[in-house]
Amino acid sequence: MSDNPSFVLNAIEKVAYEQRPIPEIGDDDVLVEVKKTGICGSDVHYLVHGRIGDFVVESPMVLGHESAGIISKGRAPCFCCYTSYQLLICVVGKNVKSVKAGDRVAMEPGVSCRKCDACKSGRYQLCPDMIFAATPPYDGTLARYYRLPADLVYLLPAHLTLEDGAMMEPLSVAVHSVHSLANLQPNQTIAVFGCGPVGLLCMAVAKALGASRIIAVDIVDSRLEFAKSYAATETYKPPTPQEGESKIAYSKRSSDILKQTLGVEERGDKAIDIVLDASGAEVSIQTGLFIAKIGGTFIQVGMGQPEVVFPVSQLLAKELVVKGSFRYGPGDYRLAIALAAAHRIDLKPMVTHRFKFDDAVTAFKATKAGKSEDGKALIKAIISGPDVSVDEY
Amino acid sequence: MSDNPSFVLNAIEKVAYEQRPIPEIGDDDVLVEVKKTGICGSDVHYLVHGRIGDFVVESPMVLGHESAGIISKGRAPCFCCYTSYQLLICVVGKNVKSVKAGDRVAMEPGVSCRKCDACKSGRYQLCPDMIFAATPPYDGTLARYYRLPADLVYLLPAHLTLEDGAMMEPLSVAVHSVHSLANLQPNQTIAVFGCGPVGLLCMAVAKALGASRIIAVDIVDSRLEFAKSYAATETYKPPTPQEGESKIAYSKRSSDILKQTLGVEERGDKAIDIVLDASGAEVSIQTGLFIAKIGGTFIQVGMGQPEVVFPVSQLLAKELVVKGSFRYGPGDYRLAIALAAAHRIDLKPMVTHRFKFDDAVTAFKATKAGKSEDGKALIKAIISGPDVSVDEY
Amino acid sequence: MSDNPSFVLNAIEKVAYEQRPIPEIGDDDVLVEVKKTGICGSDVHYLVHGRIGDFVVESPMVLGHESAGIISKGRAPCFCCYTSYQLLICVVGKNVKSVKAGDRVAMEPGVSCRKCDACKSGRYQLCPDMIFAATPPYDGTLARYYRLPADLVYLLPAHLTLEDGAMMEPLSVAVHSVHSLANLQPNQTIAVFGCGPVGLLCMAVAKALGASRIIAVDIVDSRLEFAKSYAATETYKPPTPQEGESKIAYSKRSSDILKQTLGVEERGDKAIDIVLDASGAEVSIQTGLFIAKIGGTFIQVGMGQPEVVFPVSQLLAKELVVKGSFRYGPGDYRLAIALAAAHRIDLKPMVTHRFKFDDAVTAFKATKAGKSEDGKALIKAIISGPDVSVDEY
Amino acid sequence: MSDNPSFVLNAIEKVAYEQRPIPEIGDDDVLVEVKKTGICGSDVHYLVHGRIGDFVVESPMVLGHESAGIISKGRAPCFCCYTSYQLLICVVGKNVKSVKAGDRVAMEPGVSCRKCDACKSGRYQLCPDMIFAATPPYDGTLARYYRLPADLVYLLPAHLTLEDGAMMEPLSVAVHSVHSLANLQPNQTIAVFGCGPVGLLCMAVAKALGASRIIAVDIVDSRLEFAKSYAATETYKPPTPQEGESKIAYSKRSSDILKQTLGVEERGDKAIDIVLDASGAEVSIQTGLFIAKIGGTFIQVGMGQPEVVFPVSQLLAKELVVKGSFRYGPGDYRLAIALAAAHRIDLKPMVTHRFKFDDAVTAFKATKAGKSEDGKALIKAIISGPDVSVDEY
Repeated sequence: MSDNPSFVLNAIEKVAYEQRPIPEIGDDDVLVEVKKTGICGSDVHYLVHGRIGDFVVESPMVLGHESAGIISKGRAPCFCCYTSYQLLICVVGKNVKSVKAGDRVAMEPGVSCRKCDACKSGRYQLCPDMIFAATPPYDGTLARYYRLPADLVYLLPAHLTLEDGAMMEPLSVAVHSVHSLANLQPNQTIAVFGCGPVGLLCMAVAKALGASRIIAVDIVDSRLEFAKSYAATETYKPPTPQEGESKIAYSKRSSDILKQTLGVEERGDKAIDIVLDASGAEVSIQTGLFIAKIGGTFIQVGMGQPEVVFPVSQLLAKELVVKGSFRYGPGDYRLAIALAAAHRIDLKPMVTHRFKFDDAVTAFKATKAGKSEDGKALIKAIISGPDVSVDEY
Repeated sequence: MSDNPSFVLNAIEKVAYEQRPIPEIGDDDVLVEVKKTGICGSDVHYLVHGRIGDFVVESPMVLGHESAGIISKGRAPCFCCYTSYQLLICVVGKNVKSVKAGDRVAMEPGVSCRKCDACKSGRYQLCPDMIFAATPPYDGTLARYYRLPADLVYLLPAHLTLEDGAMMEPLSVAVHSVHSLANLQPNQTIAVFGCGPVGLLCMAVAKALGASRIIAVDIVDSRLEFAKSYAATETYKPPTPQEGESKIAYSKRSSDILKQTLGVEERGDKAIDIVLDASGAEVSIQTGLFIAKIGGTFIQVGMGQPEVVFPVSQLLAKELVVKGSFRYGPGDYRLAIALAAAHRIDLKPMVTHRFKFDDAVTAFKATKAGKSEDGKALIKAIISGPDVSVDEY
Repeated sequence: MSDNPSFVLNAIEKVAYEQRPIPEIGDDDVLVEVKKTGICGSDVHYLVHGRIGDFVVESPMVLGHESAGIISKGRAPCFCCYTSYQLLICVVGKNVKSVKAGDRVAMEPGVSCRKCDACKSGRYQLCPDMIFAATPPYDGTLARYYRLPADLVYLLPAHLTLEDGAMMEPLSVAVHSVHSLANLQPNQTIAVFGCGPVGLLCMAVAKALGASRIIAVDIVDSRLEFAKSYAATETYKPPTPQEGESKIAYSKRSSDILKQTLGVEERGDKAIDIVLDASGAEVSIQTGLFIAKIGGTFIQVGMGQPEVVFPVSQLLAKELVVKGSFRYGPGDYRLAIALAAAHRIDLKPMVTHRFKFDDAVTAFKATKAGKSEDGKALIKAIISGPDVSVDEY
Repeated sequence: MSDNPSFVLNAIEKVAYEQRPIPEIGDDDVLVEVKKTGICGSDVHYLVHGRIGDFVVESPMVLGHESAGIISKGRAPCFCCYTSYQLLICVVGKNVKSVKAGDRVAMEPGVSCRKCDACKSGRYQLCPDMIFAATPPYDGTLARYYRLPADLVYLLPAHLTLEDGAMMEPLSVAVHSVHSLANLQPNQTIAVFGCGPVGLLCMAVAKALGASRIIAVDIVDSRLEFAKSYAATETYKPPTPQEGESKIAYSKRSSDILKQTLGVEERGDKAIDIVLDASGAEVSIQTGLFIAKIGGTFIQVGMGQPEVVFPVSQLLAKELVVKGSFRYGPGDYRLAIALAAAHRIDLKPMVTHRFKFDDAVTAFKATKAGKSEDGKALIKAIISGPDVSVDEY
């Protein structure tokens, strides 16, 4: 009853494959056979640092939370009776009607309490009792089996792959930021700082929602080139800091260059309605506030250093709205899938590297390095489940 | 035609009384005889520094923008014909129906262009072509006469004084911050940093709108005492910084003390829904972000130093919304008057000092010092118009 | 194990007291001893007609849903072990921390599924699987015991009575309509059609939220008088219909009279921002649409005839927003209690009649008649629980 | 000074070409040479009935309001000096910077007062003093020259034709309904009743905004076919009414057939988020309310009969939001142009008929008939200006 191989973080930089019990499911749950899992920067961060802010890994924890899989067909035992391994019962809870064994599903990896004010008022991402995969102390999805309430698995249309399904997690982060928080409207202009996976997906969402200008900002040429080929309409590479130049002076200078180079103004048709920072870098945040339009919106997604020098004068004089973006909330997963299903977002170019379940360590190493051993730049690495080939999508 | 005595800032710390032309009015305008004008920190700032941010006093400018007055009865000459001083024409534009000569009015001192996107979409405070009293290069209201479009003067109910009318300007700043931006709801909790006029009026608005807890924060005991007597339900005085303690460490420590002392938590019934900083102090902003509830709102009103060290980790982990507040927009003046008219806000305790028009220099001096020569703490100083006694309200 | 006397509707106009099993509670539940229950028009409607719209009473159903009580102290048996009646376990589920045995609580009588889109997006009142007290096929609260999840019982402050607690249910309907749907702002004007309990409570909420004008409309003088004494600022009694006059012509005429009599216009300071119909009468809806301001909001709460002749021309030409109001959603109960606790709403005048548990039939009869046998006009009748005196509030 | 040939409605069914004075322009105005004008149902309605609701044609009025043109190059005389016809001054007001003579522009034909509460709060379409082309008593655009404030003319990108420009007016009606009022989100489902020009454009906007299902409803097969080829994803043709069947019974039956035929439910993935009626027919409104999802939105655009039997039970039980749509507001014209400019909406299929300025009577006749004399079905007829060929777009 414990044939559930799992990739476990035991301590900083200490990982191991272990057999874990197959989760028991409740009446509203399903058991998913995990087939594809993307590696997120947070997974790597736990591996390297053992913590993210106040979340500290204090006991062994299975990693992974960007996953898709197939509703189990019954390799799991019956937990009511524990009779045999072959029984086709108990892999789909008795109340579940939305999915059935064999369905291919994207997995939303956070189970909220459903009873607190946050949950009841439509912001479950702020639930204090959230059980989130691979956030301590809760186990993640890099295992053969993972249990979820049925309302948190989403049927994949036939033309979307399981890899697409795994990408729904970071895509939902982007949908949450660009749609639910920034409320980007058609014909608006957005600037995105940072061309990592989240930044790129934010650009993809902006494109899908009809943004007219999508300005990608990064300090690495190859990342800007990818952004341009993927979803950005134009790019900006900040200048090299000058000796003795303060960060804020540098950021002001960089913002002036951006405005001049790209023809950006602080009001009217040439203004940037939404600035989104997916880099976490202090100078990105500063530059972003300097270029935002009067009355504009700034979204912070993804953490860098915990404190930054912040030009509060911009906040005031331009009456900006600044929002932090945390995971995703009601409707975000559904819209992410819909945008991909409608071919408004193509997730395939994002997956640059694929690994077998047994090569998870190599996958983490490559993600940390930002490239594989052969030097190929990595955007997103996908680890296959123990029961699926790397070539099956 | 120029009998319009005015209090003019000619250069830093150089002021003088001068005769200025009586403004000509257009078909939609009224001419107001200014009776009462409050002194704002920004007036003092221009006097002392000659600038606020990008707004620089480059030519002589009449000071003052917190005013109420009486629609002129005809001491003004006719600008169509320039015949005589007694004519009762042209003091109310021919299209004006909402007010008539003799009416007592509060004066909204910013005339927007009415044609730009900001104006048309309901955020006229962001109009790039705003003509705002005593913001360079535009003259202010410390004069006998001031011209305004009729839609920017508001009839005062009989039981409100002209001093109340002058207070509508800072009260509208508070309404804009607490109501229009923070959208405070009945039974919510707010913390206000800074017990100067704007902070106090924000507390008064919060009380009028049904806030259940109003926490005043300041470092001066007497200011906290006044806040408590005026609108706050409780007060908090931050500790003295320790030697070698960074500002952010100090702010974190202060926030912990506040939480413990006042029984504040980050979620649930004891959480602070809205934090508003009216101090501009770096540690206030930091402490405010640390105490805000998960999913809460932070409003910045009033400038301090242009850059602050900002705990962006709080923004992210609590998915905060941070907004800058700039002047006031559609409906704010009207609600300010309504709240005062309905006795939900009492403005009288705010006016601690009164000066004759000829004593404007003394009034500015006292406002800058925060007290009059006799040592009495000053909250708001009101300067009477040249034609009205200090004792007439 | 079944000492749970309950007031059961067995068929149209057939009621009886029956012993029902004491509900078993789950880990997140509490068992409430019901002390006070108000009678709602819907209870009477089920009694008289056996149905409301698509909700049909097809099997015996306990009536009542406006209740307050006390978290049981252990008269209930232990359902784990069924050993004895005295055990102090199992009356508060093991996960429950928010309340304890002996607490006085208002009871929110609808348990939603917490998993559907409506529940997760902050509109649980639209949950298709809602289990609502005394809505077929679910039993109501007119019993000794009632089980609820702990998040649906709300602690009553010491100065609120259990009768106040029972009134929180209809008050939440009013909060939902006036605050959550109509979003009434301070200084706005509202007109409320129908001076029954819901209409009166809507006026009370409007007053508590700072409405400047509250116009009560009814065709019965005594009801208008009560409204005026309770929360309305002015009243309007529609004229008698003329012979041969169509309803729409009558309503147009009545709206003209209202406008003239009360000085109401369709725009500006004298306009009615919000019209709320709590009567369900066709002419009320029509008149309401005719008097609403341009750009105004119309709220329908409470059902009358299923179809009405509707002046769609008003909807278009005035760009009105019309909303149906159904029960209450997240935060409504909490705000209802807060407004009463802060003395912004006084519920005591609403309770005109009180009955013993054994006199429930008389209570229903009086509610149906709108008056008791002695002729005294009835607004709200409260039935005490089997274990509490009529005189204990 | 009056070389301004205009198409004037003198009385019901009485039209004539007349010379009108060339409008004088103010400092913020431009003079547009009108090149293309679409005929709207309201133009025809004034021609045939002399009124629409309370708007009555009481004196001769130039027709037309769906127009595009070219900023005049100076055929207009100078109104300052009235010296000669050739002067190149005064066709662009001295304050105007956004456009210049020779620019091709779409014309927003409603000039609001800019000073009332509606204008200042971002809903200028509700301005009581709106001067709207071809709404009595104001002249329309079917003339050689038309004056507009510069902020109401919008530059056409090079790849959009002047006919596209004329279509921006009805397209803005659709943008206002589908985007600004219904707030359609990507992946939502919309049903549109009525496949006339406004209904079709609403579908086009829905498609451009990413609706997943767009259900066109009409009783004419050819119109449904066009809708399907243009923007709808599926169509529904209501059944023939049965003898003695009430409209409401018919509508209920029709809604049941629609649900069954198209697999529509009242909740979940198969629900209709937004129902929009562009037909004005009573049974459309009724059917629309029956098929709307629980918690859905119903938009009424375009008037039919002034009163309809309205199933208020649906409003209540499903907590619907019903909104009337009136013209367009801030940002609608801009988004309309952007969607067309980005090739998200193709306006060319909508223009089925083209007429010379001198053939305006024929154009109106065909629009009224819904087809030209050769029997070809008419969707939109465009009348060229007096100085432009029918073949020039």
